[in-house]
Amino acid sequence: MFPRNAWYVACTPDEIDEKPLGRQICGEHIVFYRGADGQVAALEDFCPHRGARLSLGQVCEGQLVCGYHGLVMGCDGRTVSMPSQRVGAFPAIRVFPVVERHGFVWVWPGDPAQADPARIHHLFWADSPDWAYGGGLYHVRCDYRLMIDNLMDLTHETYVHSTSIGQKEIDETPVSTKTEGDEIVTSRFMDNVMAPPFWRANLRGNHLPDDQPVDRWQVCRFTAPSHVMIEVGVALAGQGGYHAPSDQKVYSIVVDFITPETETSHWYFWGMARNFNVKDKALTAQIRENQGKVFAEDMAVLEAQQQNLLAFPGRKLLSLNIDAGGVRSRRIIERLVAEEQQAAQPAAAQAA
Amino acid sequence: MFPRNAWYVACTPDEIDEKPLGRQICGEHIVFYRGADGQVAALEDFCPHRGARLSLGQVCEGQLVCGYHGLVMGCDGRTVSMPSQRVGAFPAIRVFPVVERHGFVWVWPGDPAQADPARIHHLFWADSPDWAYGGGLYHVRCDYRLMIDNLMDLTHETYVHSTSIGQKEIDETPVSTKTEGDEIVTSRFMDNVMAPPFWRANLRGNHLPDDQPVDRWQVCRFTAPSHVMIEVGVALAGQGGYHAPSDQKVYSIVVDFITPETETSHWYFWGMARNFNVKDKALTAQIRENQGKVFAEDMAVLEAQQQNLLAFPGRKLLSLNIDAGGVRSRRIIERLVAEEQQAAQPAAAQAA
Amino acid sequence: MFPRNAWYVACTPDEIDEKPLGRQICGEHIVFYRGADGQVAALEDFCPHRGARLSLGQVCEGQLVCGYHGLVMGCDGRTVSMPSQRVGAFPAIRVFPVVERHGFVWVWPGDPAQADPARIHHLFWADSPDWAYGGGLYHVRCDYRLMIDNLMDLTHETYVHSTSIGQKEIDETPVSTKTEGDEIVTSRFMDNVMAPPFWRANLRGNHLPDDQPVDRWQVCRFTAPSHVMIEVGVALAGQGGYHAPSDQKVYSIVVDFITPETETSHWYFWGMARNFNVKDKALTAQIRENQGKVFAEDMAVLEAQQQNLLAFPGRKLLSLNIDAGGVRSRRIIERLVAEEQQAAQPAAAQAA
Repeated sequence: MFPRNAWYVACTPDEIDEKPLGRQICGEHIVFYRGADGQVAALEDFCPHRGARLSLGQVCEGQLVCGYHGLVMGCDGRTVSMPSQRVGAFPAIRVFPVVERHGFVWVWPGDPAQADPARIHHLFWADSPDWAYGGGLYHVRCDYRLMIDNLMDLTHETYVHSTSIGQKEIDETPVSTKTEGDEIVTSRFMDNVMAPPFWRANLRGNHLPDDQPVDRWQVCRFTAPSHVMIEVGVALAGQGGYHAPSDQKVYSIVVDFITPETETSHWYFWGMARNFNVKDKALTAQIRENQGKVFAEDMAVLEAQQQNLLAFPGRKLLSLNIDAGGVRSRRIIERLVAEEQQAAQPAAAQAA
Repeated sequence: MFPRNAWYVACTPDEIDEKPLGRQICGEHIVFYRGADGQVAALEDFCPHRGARLSLGQVCEGQLVCGYHGLVMGCDGRTVSMPSQRVGAFPAIRVFPVVERHGFVWVWPGDPAQADPARIHHLFWADSPDWAYGGGLYHVRCDYRLMIDNLMDLTHETYVHSTSIGQKEIDETPVSTKTEGDEIVTSRFMDNVMAPPFWRANLRGNHLPDDQPVDRWQVCRFTAPSHVMIEVGVALAGQGGYHAPSDQKVYSIVVDFITPETETSHWYFWGMARNFNVKDKALTAQIRENQGKVFAEDMAVLEAQQQNLLAFPGRKLLSLNIDAGGVRSRRIIERLVAEEQQAAQPAAAQAA
Repeated sequence: MFPRNAWYVACTPDEIDEKPLGRQICGEHIVFYRGADGQVAALEDFCPHRGARLSLGQVCEGQLVCGYHGLVMGCDGRTVSMPSQRVGAFPAIRVFPVVERHGFVWVWPGDPAQADPARIHHLFWADSPDWAYGGGLYHVRCDYRLMIDNLMDLTHETYVHSTSIGQKEIDETPVSTKTEGDEIVTSRFMDNVMAPPFWRANLRGNHLPDDQPVDRWQVCRFTAPSHVMIEVGVALAGQGGYHAPSDQKVYSIVVDFITPETETSHWYFWGMARNFNVKDKALTAQIRENQGKVFAEDMAVLEAQQQNLLAFPGRKLLSLNIDAGGVRSRRIIERLVAEEQQAAQPAAAQAA
C-alpha cells in the first residue's frame, strides 16, 4: 500500500557514479544510471532481448549496454543498437521519470504524465553553503509505514535510544499534532533539561558548554508520500529555545526519506543537516556515525515489529495521543492510494 | 498436530535470569520473564500499543517494560502504566499458565481453566541430593513426533550412534512394549555384552571396571504430551542387571522434553540424571558433552527425515514391532487432540 | 518442463566412490551408490521403513544400509533384510535405470521400460588415449533451458567473458544454424583474428606462437534432452582453420551436460576435451581452472536472469537470428515433453 504517483528518493548520486544500479522501488525493478549528458536515467531493469538484468551491464558513452549480449539501450527505453541486428521492431521498455536534485535521485514509479518535477520535495538547506549534510542508507525489512510511525512519535527515544538521544523528559512532555494540508506536524518542547550524550557532543561541536541546562525541541514534519523532516536541537536554557540566537544553540534537521521496496521492506535514506560549524568535516563524520548507530537500533525494533504483526494477524493497534502523527500520516497515504485507484477505474472500465 | 491442554517445558530458569525470553511454543509467540516476586510469567509476546515484541524489552522491578515506547505490562496481561497515558481501557493480552518446577519452566498453551499444576510431570530426581543432572537445548527442524519415534525405538543407536552408545546387540535383542494408561513403555534388556564407549566412560566414572561383560538395559517411557524418560544403564554381568546393587552398576535417566514450536520444528530439552558419583561436577560436564554430541547425530538424521517426508508426500510408513513405542505414543497424542477438538465444537456450534 | 524419458548425467564416478550420493534430478530425489559388483545403482532416496534419507546411510558389501535403523536395501529396490525383521512384505522403492559410461553416471528418470542404454550420448573422445578431459560441476539456480540458450548463442562471450574468451569479432560474425534430426548445430567461423587470452594460453600449451593471427571456430551442437557439445579452437591463420593439420591448431570440445534439478535449478557438468598435448596434466588443470572461472561468470548472469524472469512474468522474449540455436533446441524439448504427455494420457484415461 503506497502511492505510486509521487517522487521517492531512489538513490544518492554516488551510487550510480561507477556503474548502473538495480533497485526495487514500490515493487518495480528499476535500473538507474547516468546517460550521455550525465543526466540520470531510470528504466525497467529488463533487457528486451532475453530478460537479462540491465543493471549488471555497463554504461558506455552514456548508453546502457546489456552485459549479456551487448544490446545498447537508450534513455528513452528504446533499443539503440545491437551487434549485427536490426533493432527497429524491438519492444520498448518502461521509462521512469527521474530527476537529480538536492543531492538525491528522485523517481516517480507511477503515471509519467503526472510527474511534475516541481512537486519534488524542496530541501532549502541542500544547496546552501550555510548548511552541512551527512547521511546513509539502510535496507529495512518492514512496511515503510512502521518507519513513519517511528519518526512521528519520538517517545521511543527514551527506550530505544536510551544511551544517545533518549531522556526521561521526552515521554513526560506531551506533544501537539496539527495538520497543514497534506503535511502533519508533531511538536515537543522540553525546557530546562540536561542534554543527553548525542546533544552534549553537538554542543561541544558548536563550541558551547555541555554541562548546563538546555531547552530541547523536536518538530516532526511528515510530507506525503513518506518524507519525514525533523527539526531538532537544544539551546542553552532561557535563551529562546527553538528561537534562540544561532550562537546559543545547536539546530539540525533529521532527514528521513522512506522509500517502499515491497509491502514489507523499504529503503531508508537517513541523514542530518545542520547549520552550525558547517565546515568541520570531522564533525559531519562523527554525527553521521552516531546517527547511524541510533538508527540501527530502530531497525532492529521495527523488523521485529513487522514479524510480530505478521505473526498476530488481524490485531487492532492502539492509537494514542503520541501516535497522532503517525495515524494522521497514514490517513493521508490511504487517501492518496484511494484517489489513485479511483482515477484508474474509469480507464479500466473503458478497457473492459 | 499437538495437544494444547498440556504442560510443556518452555525453557530452563537460566534463560530468563538476565532478560525476557521470546519463544514460540505450539504456534504461540510467548514472552517469559520473572515477575516482581521472582515468579515466572508468560504472556503473548505482543505489546498492545503497537505490536512490538515485548521480549525485546526489559524487566524493571518485576514488570515487563516494552522496549519501544515504555508501556509497562503486568503479569496478568493488563497494562500497568505508560508514560503520560491512561491505560485503563487498553486491551489485555493473553496470559499463559506457567510454573517453575523441577528445574524447568512449564507452560500450558491451551485453555487456562484446565491448567492444573498437579498435572506437571513429576521428576522425583530433580530435587534430590542423591541425583545429579546435566542437559541442554537443541532447536530441531522437524515434527516433534519424529523425535518421539526416535526415542521410543533405540535400535537406531546401532546405526546413528555407532561410536558412542550403539552396539550390534541392540538390534538383535527384541523389545517389549506395553501401555500403562496414557504412558507407553518399551523395554530392552541385553545380558552379558561388552559396554560401548559411552558406558565404559560411565563405568569408570563410578569407579567400576570397564573391560568386563555387563548387563545393559533401556526402558523408554513416553508420557503425554511429549515427554520421554529413558532408564538406561549397565551393571557388571550377573549382578542383577537393572536390579543390581548401586555399587555394581551405573544407572541414569535420559531426560527428553520435546516441545513443539511449529508443525515442523520443536525445542528439544535433553539431559541425563544419574545417581552415581553425583558430586563430581567434571563427570556431569563430561556426560553432558558426550550426550550433546550423540543427540546432534539424531538431529541431522531427523531433519533430513522431515525434509524427505515433505518431498515424498502421502507415503505410508511401516509400523514394525520396534516402532510400537512410537506408534502407540502417537495414538495417544491423536486421541488427546481429537478430544480437545470435540470439546471445542459445542462452543463453536453455540457461537454459530 | 523437462523430458523424463532421457539419459541425463547424474554425477561423476568420484562422487560415489566413498559414500552414497543423494541428488535431486528432474524433481526426483535419488540415491546413487555402487552395488556389490561395483555397478552403479540408483534408487528413490527414501527408506521404506520410516522415510529416512538412504543417502545418509552407507554401503556395506555392495548393499545400501539405512543409517537410521539398519534396513538393508537391494539394488532392485527391495529390502534385503533388517535386523530382527521379516522383510518380505516391505514395499519396494523405485529403481531408476542407471549406467556408468564415458566417465559419467547416467540416469533415466522416466519410464524404465524405455531406458535403452544404446541411447546414451556417445562420447567418442572419452575412452580414447588421444584425448584428455578435465571438468567440474556447478549447481545453478535457473531453469536448465537458460543454460542451453547461453551455450547455443556464444555472442555473449564478448560481454560476459570479455577478459578470457570474448572478442569483438564474435558478435560481428554471423552464425548459421541448422537442424539435423533431433540435433541443432550453430556455427561461427572467424578468420584472421587475434586470439583472446584463453586461446593464447592454449596455443602456448600446444607449443604454437600466440602472437599471430588465427582462424577461430565455434560449432555448438545441442542433443536432446540437454547436452551441448561445442567444438572450439583456433588455427594459425590460413592453415585451413577448422580443417588445419593438428600441429597448426588447438582444437577442443566444450562439454556441457545440463541436468534439471527442479523447474528453476539444475546441475551443470562442464568440461573440456582436447586432442593436443594430452599427457600434460598441468595443462589439463590449468584449462580446467580457467574454464571454471569463465563458467562462473555465466552462472551469475543466468541466476539473475532467472530472478528477472520471475519478477517480470508473462513477458515475451525476442528470438533473433543469434537465438536460433536456443529457440530450436527448446522446440525439440517441448515436442519431447508433449509426446511424453500424450503417451501417458491413454493410460490415465484407462485408469479413470
